[in-house]
Formats: sequence, structure tokens, C-alpha cells
Amino acid sequence: MKRSQFALKTFREAPKDADSKNARFLERGGYINKLMAGVYSFLPLGLRVMRNLEDIIREEMDGIGGQELFLPVLGPKENWQKSGRYEDLDILYKMDTVDEKQIVLNPTHEEIIVPLVKSMISSYNDLPLYLYQIQDKFRNEKRAKSGLLRGREFMMKDLYSFHINESDLDDYYEKMSRVYAKIFSRAGIGEKTILTFASGGTFSKYSHEFQTLSENGEDTIYLCEKCNVAVNKEIIDEHNYCPNCKSADLIEKSAIEVGNIFKLRTKYSKPFELKVANQKGETKEVEMGCYGIGISRLMATIVEVTAGEGKIVWPEEVAPFKVQLISLGRNVEANELYETAYNDKQNILYDDRDDISAGEKFAEADLIGSPVRIIISDKSLSAGGAEVIDHQKGRTTIVPLDKVLVRID
Amino acid sequence: MKRSQFALKTFREAPKDADSKNARFLERGGYINKLMAGVYSFLPLGLRVMRNLEDIIREEMDGIGGQELFLPVLGPKENWQKSGRYEDLDILYKMDTVDEKQIVLNPTHEEIIVPLVKSMISSYNDLPLYLYQIQDKFRNEKRAKSGLLRGREFMMKDLYSFHINESDLDDYYEKMSRVYAKIFSRAGIGEKTILTFASGGTFSKYSHEFQTLSENGEDTIYLCEKCNVAVNKEIIDEHNYCPNCKSADLIEKSAIEVGNIFKLRTKYSKPFELKVANQKGETKEVEMGCYGIGISRLMATIVEVTAGEGKIVWPEEVAPFKVQLISLGRNVEANELYETAYNDKQNILYDDRDDISAGEKFAEADLIGSPVRIIISDKSLSAGGAEVIDHQKGRTTIVPLDKVLVRID
Repeated sequence: MKRSQFALKTFREAPKDADSKNARFLERGGYINKLMAGVYSFLPLGLRVMRNLEDIIREEMDGIGGQELFLPVLGPKENWQKSGRYEDLDILYKMDTVDEKQIVLNPTHEEIIVPLVKSMISSYNDLPLYLYQIQDKFRNEKRAKSGLLRGREFMMKDLYSFHINESDLDDYYEKMSRVYAKIFSRAGIGEKTILTFASGGTFSKYSHEFQTLSENGEDTIYLCEKCNVAVNKEIIDEHNYCPNCKSADLIEKSAIEVGNIFKLRTKYSKPFELKVANQKGETKEVEMGCYGIGISRLMATIVEVTAGEGKIVWPEEVAPFKVQLISLGRNVEANELYETAYNDKQNILYDDRDDISAGEKFAEADLIGSPVRIIISDKSLSAGGAEVIDHQKGRTTIVPLDKVLVRID
Repeated sequence: MKRSQFALKTFREAPKDADSKNARFLERGGYINKLMAGVYSFLPLGLRVMRNLEDIIREEMDGIGGQELFLPVLGPKENWQKSGRYEDLDILYKMDTVDEKQIVLNPTHEEIIVPLVKSMISSYNDLPLYLYQIQDKFRNEKRAKSGLLRGREFMMKDLYSFHINESDLDDYYEKMSRVYAKIFSRAGIGEKTILTFASGGTFSKYSHEFQTLSENGEDTIYLCEKCNVAVNKEIIDEHNYCPNCKSADLIEKSAIEVGNIFKLRTKYSKPFELKVANQKGETKEVEMGCYGIGISRLMATIVEVTAGEGKIVWPEEVAPFKVQLISLGRNVEANELYETAYNDKQNILYDDRDDISAGEKFAEADLIGSPVRIIISDKSLSAGGAEVIDHQKGRTTIVPLDKVLVRID
């Protein structure tokens, strides 16, 4: 993509009403635009980041047998009454329609997928079943805040697993826990993301959260530094020791919840009567798990823990452009390099503008945050080629022009 | 994908409340599931079709300079008041929120993208600009009907173009018209889809619809069979002749609108004061066009014009699986072929189930509708290999097992 053709507008300052580090950085960088409190448009630059995260998640979900579907935003009141959450969930958006029915905007999809799966399965042969979607979700938050961290409209991956018995659920839950760790590692925040024990509700002993350490995090966790495992605030009174080594030496930390996994057991299969006969001919309620990742929140979290003032280096698999090529008055040489890279389908942004100063180009490149930056200037050419900065390795080298693309691969 | 692992449930009969050919076929075939009137879940089989259509559209939009973004479902009342559509559009879903603001579910995105673009452009150098998204849209329809054809929640591609002057808009509009024809051709309904002149509203002489001839279509168009161009019912009184050859020999036909393109001119740039200075230094309102395709509606339209009773052959680029491999008691040979195809990343569904009769397998294969079907049975093996049915060419051949995958490519 040539910068002169790319629909991007960056700003010198973040908007005054940006209420968090992620909002300030992402709005200033032209990734997102605030439409109203808690509701953001994803601009071409921001959508590239979100799609990269979606791709990672989709690949990992498919890898453990997940099958993708797409459930509606609108939900019928009856389904939410059946589970008891129509009155209980205060963040539910409720709406009257012209045909005098009441509907909701689904904040999660248990109430939709359980009756759906009921229509799809007829025997234990149809289990286990792992269904997921990537879809907008909605929360009627009293106070939307923290940019993409607590939005009213946000992108989620939610997977629901259906099992013939509890031990099958337990096995899958363990697998999913490992896959989640892998996802956050691929998203570049693996080292800061802590498996955290949380309340399991009435149906299970524990659930687990993936909490990314961040001083701006709204959650409080109690970390065992030895085991890299934590307990969340909700259950610390009854569980004030490391779940792994049993040590009581826990450190209070702020963190952002980027994912959670939950054994629902039969909480939703009961009210919706989702049952199948097992191998012994006994009809039993289906055992369920649910597994969420807030994708827009994950994007914000990467910013919270990675970005500096006006500057980011995106993790390799997340970066909107892997390479940024900057020409400082040497468009002939830069064009040639760009054309080669473009034909090679490299994910490259080429700043070809000639009415923009070097300082402005660099400032913008800092906001776009490619892992690799290539500069072609009089200075670099007289030193022997292009200046190639590998931000992740922290290394700058001069590379002959005909070797540049070989070197960065 | 192995059929035994694929989350698909087909039915002998369509549900009683399915109100149209597309709903009957797609619900029976396990493509979609009705959640409530006008609101459908896309199951894994149906999502594959929708994603294929999205891929075609995305490729064509990118091909004429479109840049993808993602705008919110929720919209602020104020924006819709500014354009005058808050009161005028009776299909607008309106909702109160906990912080006592009123919001809407966006049925289209002019009111969102125009102020957004205002924040992104500062001079004629930033134009033209072509932005599109693929996103859920919402219409509070009094009577949702016709399956995916008139839904309350539906998937749309909408592109908005921004120009410095009318002639630039005109040029792009013509290009888009040709690209739309290409999209419907790739989607397999090109021959039945007619460029149709429609009202241009107060700001333009005409807009254009792409109308697919179908006896179940809700629209009425007046077709010039010689020129393959039509006039829609709305303007036939003032324009009762072929826009091309001027002949008055027009034939009344039923059709489904699968796309429309519209010169908005300054209809929305006026109220939102979207202006830039042109090369002469004159500040003028930006000229706009909008270009929509209902993607879920397109899927339904393909069914309406392609499917028979319990049977479809999907167009090549749209098919959820390009190849269906059916084993009739010869899983050893079929497995080997499947493994080879799978490793070769072929888009193949392999019916490996051994507790299902041949009749049931064929009936289901008819619902899934791959362009190519391969059957391996005692009969086919004794005839010399696999029976390969190319549904598009209407040809059945026996192909030696080691040549099958070479042949279908």
C-alpha cells in the first residue's frame, strides 16, 4: 500500500475526551474513531490490526475442532426470560419493535446457541461439538470507559463446547486453557498474561481468566510470582494462596482481563432442556463450557502494555503492516523496492509522499508501528544502500538495495 | 472436512413456518436457522457460502480502490436528526439507554461515515476516497418476510465514494456499475441480473438497481429484451421506454434487487458540512456516491433462481465445498483420496459415515450442492475407479483413483 493512497489521518494530539491510554493512542494514530461513548469505528489501519487478531484466534479455534458460525445481534426476549437473565442482567439492551415484540441486543449467546444446538443434535454421536463465532456484542453500560476496554459495542470471539459428560468437558477445558495461552503469546502479550483462578458460579468450582498485567488495568489479581498463576479479587477471601504451590506469598497487581473460560456445566442446558441419550441409554443434560476473548479489548490491551508516548512496535503477527518503507527524497530507488515487495505480496506500507518532512514521516511511522522500518535517503545510499531497522531485535543495518527484501523475510 | 465431524444437520422437510423458497431450502439444508421473524443464525454450512460471497465482493471492491473499515451497529440519535431521517425512516430501530440517551441501530451508514470522513480529509489531495464495510444492518420491518430476502437483521456491503466534483463521481459510478455486473457474474447469477434504471431522488436523475429475474421477486421491472436493460416500476410512468434503444417494447417481469448504486451528490455532505477546497481554492461540498449489496439477500437470490426441490448446484466460487466425496462402503479407498485432497488444501467434504444409507447420502449431497461429486463404491471400482460427476458440465465419468484429483482441478 502506498501511503499517498492509504485512507489514514493521524493527529498531533489525542482528542481531549479520550479517556485512557489505548483510546488516546489509537484515536491519535487513526486506528479508531469515537462515534459516541463506548462506541468506536474501526478505520482501515485499526481494522487491519483487528483482522490479524481474528486470524490468529480463528486458526487456533479451528485447530481444536472449533467450527465457525454466525449468530444474530438481535435476540428474542423469551430466550432471555427462560434463562432468568432478562431481569438479572442490568447491561441488557432492551427494545420494542413495530410488531410490539420485545427484543434484546445479545451481550453473549448462551440463550441463542443452546436452543439452536438442541435442533442440531439427536444422539451422543453428535457430541462433542465446538461452535464459535466472531461477532459484535453489546452492553448497556452505565458508564462506558477506558476506550476499547469497556465498550458498549465490542468484538468478541465466543466458543461454546457441548459434551456428553463432565470428564469430556474437563479434558477440553484443559486443552482450551493451553490454546488460550498460545493465542496471547502470538498476540505478543504472552509473558504478561496470567492464568487467574476466578469464581465458577453455582455450577463449577472455578473459572479461569487470562489477566494481562497493566498498571491501568481495572481488575485486581493476586499473583504467585514463582508459579506465574494468580487468584482474582472475587475469590481471594476464600482462596488466599497459590492454586499451584499453595504458597500464601501473593502479590497484588492490576490487570486487564483479555479472556475467560468457564465450565457452564448444565446451567443453560437445564432451562432449555438440551439433553441427549448417552451410550447406556440414559438421557442426560449436555455438559457445556464457554470460552471468550474480547478481540477489540485485546487490541486495546496490546496498546496499554506495548505503546509508549506516540510510539508503538506491534507484535509481528498483529502489525497492520509488517514493513514500513520511507523515502526521503529518493522515490526512484524506493519505488523500485516497493514494486518488488508489492509483487511479492509483502505486507508493506510505502511512504511515497514528497510534500511531508522527514520528521513528520518518522512521527507517523512511530504511530503505525511496523516491526521493520526501511529508510532510503541520500545518507543511506551513500552509506551503501537502505537503512533497515529491526525494532524487535533493536538492530539497525545498512543493506544493499538488492538484498533488502531477502534480509527482512 | 469429514462429514462425520462437520456440524451439520439437514432435515427431510422444511419447517412449517418457512415463508419462501430460499428459507425452505436453506433451513432444510442446515445453512441457516430462524431465531425469530426476519432474524437468522448462519450455521457452518451457510457461513461458508456467505464468506465466499464476501470474498468475491471484497476482492472486487479492493480492485477499484476501496478501503475496508468497520462502522458501529449503534448510532447516535443526533446524527440521524441532522440528516432528517430520524423521523422519516420508519424502519429505524430506536432505543433508550441507561444514560438516558437515545440511540438507533444503523440501517445504513451515511449518517456515520460522512462526519467520520470530515475528520479524515482536509484538502482535495485527500480525494477521491472510497470506503466500504461488510457489516450487519437492521430494519424494524413491520412484516419481515421471504426468508433472507427481507430480514430485520442482514449482512450488507456498503461502499461510499467521495469526490471533488461531479464528473469524478460520474466516472467512478460507471466503473462501479461494471464491477457490480462482474460480482453478480462471479456469484453465478450474471445472466439473470439486469441493470435497472430507478429514481435518483431529489439530487440525481437516476439511480441504478441490479435486479435478478425471479418469479418470486417482490419487485416489478420493465425489461427491454434486446438491450438487457430495465426500468423499475417507480419511474415507469415517466420513463416508459428502454433507456438504451428508446424502444417502448418493454416486458413486465418480477425480480429481486440484489444491489443498487446511487449518486448521493451532496445530499449528506450538505447537512454534515463535508467540504474541501478544490484546486481553485473554492470550498465546495464533497460529491458522494453509495453502492450497496445485500450479501445475505444475494445468497437467498442464488437459491431462488438456482435451487430445485431439495437440490442445488452452487456456482463454482460460491459453493460451500467445491467437491463432495461419497464413500459407499469403500472407506479405505475414499480415505486415501480424501487425505491427498486434504493435504492439497482442496475444499472437499468427505461423507465417511458408515451408518447412513446411499440414498440418504445422495439426498444430503443434493442439499449441499457441490459442483463436483465423487462416488467410490463397489460398482465404481469394478468399472475402473471413482464415479466423477461434474454437475456444471452435466458429465459423469469413471476416473482411475490415482487420476481423480488431477481431473477435477
